[in-house]
Amino acid sequence: MVPVAGIGARLKRKEDPRLITGSGTYTDDIKLPGMVHVAVVRSPHAHARIRGIHTAAARSAPGVVAVLTGEELKQGLQAPLPCAWLYEGLKNPPHWPLAIDVVRHVGEGVAVVVAETRAAARDAAALVEVDYEPLPAVVDPERAMDPGAPRVHAEFDSNVAYTWEAAGGDVEAAFREADVVIRQRHLQQRLVPMALEPRAVVADCHPATGELTVWSTTQIPHLLKINLCGILGVPEHQMRVIAPEVGGGFGAKLNVYPEEVIVPFLARRLRRPVKWVEDRRENFVATIHGREGIIDVEVAARRDGEILGMRINWICDLGAYNQLNTPYIPILGLIVSPGPYRHKHHAIKITGVFTNKTPTDAYRGAGRPEATHFLERTIDRLADELGLDPAEVRRKNFVRKDEFPYTNPVGITYDSGDYHAALDKALEAVGYEELKREQAERRRRGDRLQLGIGISSYIEACGLAPSAALAGTFYGGNLFESAQVRVHHTGKVTVYTGSSAHGQGHETAWSQIVASELGIPPEDVEVLHGDTGRGPIGLGTYGSRSAAVGGIALYHALQKVKKKAALIAAHQLECSPEDLEFVDGEFRVKGAPQRALKFTQIAAAANLASHINFPPGLEPGLEETAFWQPENFTFPFGTHVCVVEVDTEDGRTRILRYVCVDDCGNVINPLLAEGQVHGGIAQGIAQALFEELVYDENGQPVNASLMEYAVPTAAELPSFESHFTCTPSPVNPLGVKGIGEAGTIAATPAVVNAIVDAVSHLGVRHIDMPCKPERVWRAIQQAQEAAAAAEGGEGR
Amino acid sequence: MVPVAGIGARLKRKEDPRLITGSGTYTDDIKLPGMVHVAVVRSPHAHARIRGIHTAAARSAPGVVAVLTGEELKQGLQAPLPCAWLYEGLKNPPHWPLAIDVVRHVGEGVAVVVAETRAAARDAAALVEVDYEPLPAVVDPERAMDPGAPRVHAEFDSNVAYTWEAAGGDVEAAFREADVVIRQRHLQQRLVPMALEPRAVVADCHPATGELTVWSTTQIPHLLKINLCGILGVPEHQMRVIAPEVGGGFGAKLNVYPEEVIVPFLARRLRRPVKWVEDRRENFVATIHGREGIIDVEVAARRDGEILGMRINWICDLGAYNQLNTPYIPILGLIVSPGPYRHKHHAIKITGVFTNKTPTDAYRGAGRPEATHFLERTIDRLADELGLDPAEVRRKNFVRKDEFPYTNPVGITYDSGDYHAALDKALEAVGYEELKREQAERRRRGDRLQLGIGISSYIEACGLAPSAALAGTFYGGNLFESAQVRVHHTGKVTVYTGSSAHGQGHETAWSQIVASELGIPPEDVEVLHGDTGRGPIGLGTYGSRSAAVGGIALYHALQKVKKKAALIAAHQLECSPEDLEFVDGEFRVKGAPQRALKFTQIAAAANLASHINFPPGLEPGLEETAFWQPENFTFPFGTHVCVVEVDTEDGRTRILRYVCVDDCGNVINPLLAEGQVHGGIAQGIAQALFEELVYDENGQPVNASLMEYAVPTAAELPSFESHFTCTPSPVNPLGVKGIGEAGTIAATPAVVNAIVDAVSHLGVRHIDMPCKPERVWRAIQQAQEAAAAAEGGEGR
Repeated sequence: MVPVAGIGARLKRKEDPRLITGSGTYTDDIKLPGMVHVAVVRSPHAHARIRGIHTAAARSAPGVVAVLTGEELKQGLQAPLPCAWLYEGLKNPPHWPLAIDVVRHVGEGVAVVVAETRAAARDAAALVEVDYEPLPAVVDPERAMDPGAPRVHAEFDSNVAYTWEAAGGDVEAAFREADVVIRQRHLQQRLVPMALEPRAVVADCHPATGELTVWSTTQIPHLLKINLCGILGVPEHQMRVIAPEVGGGFGAKLNVYPEEVIVPFLARRLRRPVKWVEDRRENFVATIHGREGIIDVEVAARRDGEILGMRINWICDLGAYNQLNTPYIPILGLIVSPGPYRHKHHAIKITGVFTNKTPTDAYRGAGRPEATHFLERTIDRLADELGLDPAEVRRKNFVRKDEFPYTNPVGITYDSGDYHAALDKALEAVGYEELKREQAERRRRGDRLQLGIGISSYIEACGLAPSAALAGTFYGGNLFESAQVRVHHTGKVTVYTGSSAHGQGHETAWSQIVASELGIPPEDVEVLHGDTGRGPIGLGTYGSRSAAVGGIALYHALQKVKKKAALIAAHQLECSPEDLEFVDGEFRVKGAPQRALKFTQIAAAANLASHINFPPGLEPGLEETAFWQPENFTFPFGTHVCVVEVDTEDGRTRILRYVCVDDCGNVINPLLAEGQVHGGIAQGIAQALFEELVYDENGQPVNASLMEYAVPTAAELPSFESHFTCTPSPVNPLGVKGIGEAGTIAATPAVVNAIVDAVSHLGVRHIDMPCKPERVWRAIQQAQEAAAAAEGGEGR
Repeated sequence: MVPVAGIGARLKRKEDPRLITGSGTYTDDIKLPGMVHVAVVRSPHAHARIRGIHTAAARSAPGVVAVLTGEELKQGLQAPLPCAWLYEGLKNPPHWPLAIDVVRHVGEGVAVVVAETRAAARDAAALVEVDYEPLPAVVDPERAMDPGAPRVHAEFDSNVAYTWEAAGGDVEAAFREADVVIRQRHLQQRLVPMALEPRAVVADCHPATGELTVWSTTQIPHLLKINLCGILGVPEHQMRVIAPEVGGGFGAKLNVYPEEVIVPFLARRLRRPVKWVEDRRENFVATIHGREGIIDVEVAARRDGEILGMRINWICDLGAYNQLNTPYIPILGLIVSPGPYRHKHHAIKITGVFTNKTPTDAYRGAGRPEATHFLERTIDRLADELGLDPAEVRRKNFVRKDEFPYTNPVGITYDSGDYHAALDKALEAVGYEELKREQAERRRRGDRLQLGIGISSYIEACGLAPSAALAGTFYGGNLFESAQVRVHHTGKVTVYTGSSAHGQGHETAWSQIVASELGIPPEDVEVLHGDTGRGPIGLGTYGSRSAAVGGIALYHALQKVKKKAALIAAHQLECSPEDLEFVDGEFRVKGAPQRALKFTQIAAAANLASHINFPPGLEPGLEETAFWQPENFTFPFGTHVCVVEVDTEDGRTRILRYVCVDDCGNVINPLLAEGQVHGGIAQGIAQALFEELVYDENGQPVNASLMEYAVPTAAELPSFESHFTCTPSPVNPLGVKGIGEAGTIAATPAVVNAIVDAVSHLGVRHIDMPCKPERVWRAIQQAQEAAAAAEGGEGR
């Protein structure tokens, strides 16, 4: 028989027929009879006291149903918005869905207007007059730490929300013994996650029973439900949260947002369906931001390139509040801050600081791109300083493949890896030596267009887990995933996964896992997710956890299905289950393969459960559920190489090639994996070259629109040359890791290292992102001026 | 602590707030964008050949989207409508959703018109011209058996679809030895199940994926889905069937109807949502009918009233086709045909006959009311013949309570009973002796209004099961039920039951089972049903199976939940699970009850599954599924006593009192049980006194409207005096049986026995239902004429 298109097959996405024909149902497609619409009145100030809110004009505007202010809303809630990571000592100011007395960032909600149409709601929102008393804004996170700085939250004695330190080895000694010490400050700019679909919420409250249904553009329908239940005071069995098609999340929809509380609150109060859809301008200021930090890195090394130790001081800009995961994001960077390198002496300190800006939170990679960026820039700085090949410096310091499981200096254990292999494959694929020759040639000729080769070797920590090193500190649970498998009469299968997808292709990948395990075609599998009313509790999709946690839950549910199916087969074949093997979708008696029953026959027997062909005493049906809790993260890795051409006269960068070698263990579907890599690299390149949300000194965002915030399109991006190595994870039965964030994590240092490499012979040592032409040009000018000054000095 | 309102509590129905405020969602409330409407062109003939169908005028009528005939439809289907009971030798003619060449009953669908509005569809349906050639109709089932009768299905050599015989003991010998033999023909009239909500179907087909969602007024969403998948050729994972609120079923919605195929077929073809809602006139001819049969009963007895044997010959009018359960209905009567009586010699023959009328199928009681009627009328005839008290004849012949489990002469084993106790309680409650004295007094006085006392003792077979006596004959499976229990973080519980309710109050009763088992308030429980997309396969609600099969599945799922919860509790309490007891919603260490954990605390621990308070290696979550397969029916029983006043001058009957004693084992909620009894009695009285669908000799129904078909209202009914005895079933852990059909089963002979008893002193021995005044009056007249003739004869 023809093998089914199971794990490893390059299957086209099952999701696409509905998505590319425009027949998917997104939250904004939910239209309910009698539905009213919400507009949010948002603060134009970064920091101000609210002296009064005048709503009379709005209330009497045409079509207006209700106006609600923060104080009124608070009276009806049981709790403010949640933060999931309440470390000891964390300052966690109450974060109500609408500001009460003080607004703390531009875009913070102050009031909402509900009206019969969206237009009426927005028109009336413009009539709400808020009497503000502006207060001084805190914008720069480093200055915010100054004891004399204005305070974002007056109730605290400083803007420092928390510090977190981790260290291993004897860092001081390492620095004392070093031949060379390099210090460099790295700036992570502030990014705006830019999903094609902005956020949206619809809520419907049953008029008689009060049961709530909430549709939301969320990555975490079950966790959103649990949180909304607590905030709104609705028991969990009377709330259903549905994430319909979700058009991208990138971590920004992994949260509990003010509007996700406000809309169901209004639906309960008004007993009418309520809708809110974010517009793009709101998306820039009311949805969480990513990155932003100031990271000082010191590295101590021997002359031969061996790294002895590192010291990292990371100031993280939290924005005005702790959102769901705000304080945790840099910790994910901390975990991987030693990267793929084996130095023993390592210290990192993270300081989270409040500022009068939109809160930061998870954005694709979430801490790990920041860490990888400063680490890989550091390796290149070190190689440059020592005159070594940056590939050689990496090879020298990589953890060796026979050292796994390997515990890094901050106590995190990597499951498996072969870092050298990925690097070698990448260099071979890109033609490293040939490129270096061409680079040397161009330098020799003094070409205007100089060639740069940037290497980035990375590890990722995938699939949030109660890793031993962090257990007992702040992991309160909620790290498992669930899967429910329902086998129908004819052997068709319905799967519910708690891992709610928003573009990843779970329906395809999960179908392939089922196909492999049950020997049925993947088109015979229906994969459901994103509806708390249709399956068991699950935790959603984030942190590249879906395959490595949700996929494993599915695997275990399928083993239970096969175990029960074997009992039925054994009954019919009159043997013991141990005498059976399951091959190509059928149970065969070992040694007598002609005595066999197809899985589809077992499915029929299980669902009929007639006394004729069903084991007495066995429960009818063929439906199983599994919950799976990982014991540790998995650790994908890889090496990306970017080749750029920098115009030394105007600072423009053109990416000539982008070669990546990723290793996420076994690949369920290469097409999906490549898609994730491509998208991730695009977002990494976007950060490296184009994107940055700029605030002025008063906390006003100055480029918060798509006319000014430079999201690249395909035209700005190269073709990606994607390769894989395969080092299966030993910690789960599918040997899978994760691939959703790899591209984003790896890409920024590959690009920046390439740019710096292209102009390093001109004296440029470092450029901060985004490497816009102006910035590259200035770096060249400054380096040449410095060189000229040095020469002049020498001449004197 | 206050005990929770668990099993046995008189809890108000949780369903009612939404139902009585008009905020329930019935199938007709489903309104989808772009939805089109179906009207069915139905045959005005009982039997005719279709020579042609002219659809041009209809096709060009305003708003018409499509016109479909039977032949076109058949081309798109994989199979005709199903019959679930394909006995060996059963004639099972193909039954396509629309007639192909021949129509076989008035109301059979011939074509459908689809239009933008319901009105347009109906207007255009009137423009479809069908060229019929009328054929002779077969109307009377007994005459239909005649070899020379016209044939309903020309391909068969007779109208007899099947015969089924069962016997025990030596019936011939019993009749030889009898002191007395009585023969009586009993006519069961044809009834129309009259749910408040007629049938309705809506279907929606996803334009890109072809996934079908079907809303239907069905009692069996999962079985409907499986059947529709087969008929339409849609794989099961691409179809979802939802039974929203269903406004009564009574067995009539336990089927697979033509419109349930046609509507989703059209939705697939047109790629638009499609709706069909039955009107009341259609309901009279296009929804299955109940009862109709001719039953000849012979009883052999001793002079002291001891029954020696019975012979029953039952001709059952199947109508024109086998619907889903048509041939099985009288078999359910066969099973209980020996009733609560212990005679050993018993023979019953059932002959199912096709006629040119609407198919019969399950209607509340389904075979068991017919059997109970002829049996209880026979007991009263025997008592009358022997001059014995009918209560005494019952007492003498009842199975004794120490004889259980008792196997009746057709091989069916009754689980438990105390028939004497129920009879005694009923007679005491009604004041039997006092009534008899009053009756004697009235007779003595020759009152115009005579008193009648009717007793009916019954058993019921509940919860369809692979009963040993029937196994191996036709039980192909599908007799289990499922339950899924999902425990949320705070201990709220969601239950999915495969037993899909349509008025019974499962949401209330299931909540009470959960409350009892988990020690939480019933309002903390959400009960879901009727949606194949939200829970495991289940078989629906029919045959009084919900508590005795579905309730037990729930019980077992809850035991699994408690077992897992105990592991978590033991971990936290640092003891072994065996050291724990579960009392009042908490796990307590035996002997140290202050060491305890509430179920709600366990729920939180299970759903968080943090390493701090969750056993290592245990799966997170607290969700369990159970499927439960009964091994036999359960056998509720009871005695009903009806007291009537018959006006001997005009034949009018007034029910003075109606006392019932029912025993369904343990009662989950007395309010619900009484409601079932009340409704059942109302339907039984309706049959006894009012309802009959009359066909003329051409097969035309002559009273197929609510203007002529006499459905009683509350004004026509007495107050019911409902009592219970409690003999728990030993075959399931809750000790429950069933109560949904008891009233209907018991009521008709109680009423008719009372009427005959009221006028028996006038010589009336028997009256067939419905006992309309005219019929009673005629019976009195005929008896008196016969008496006069006899006297005259004697006088001559």
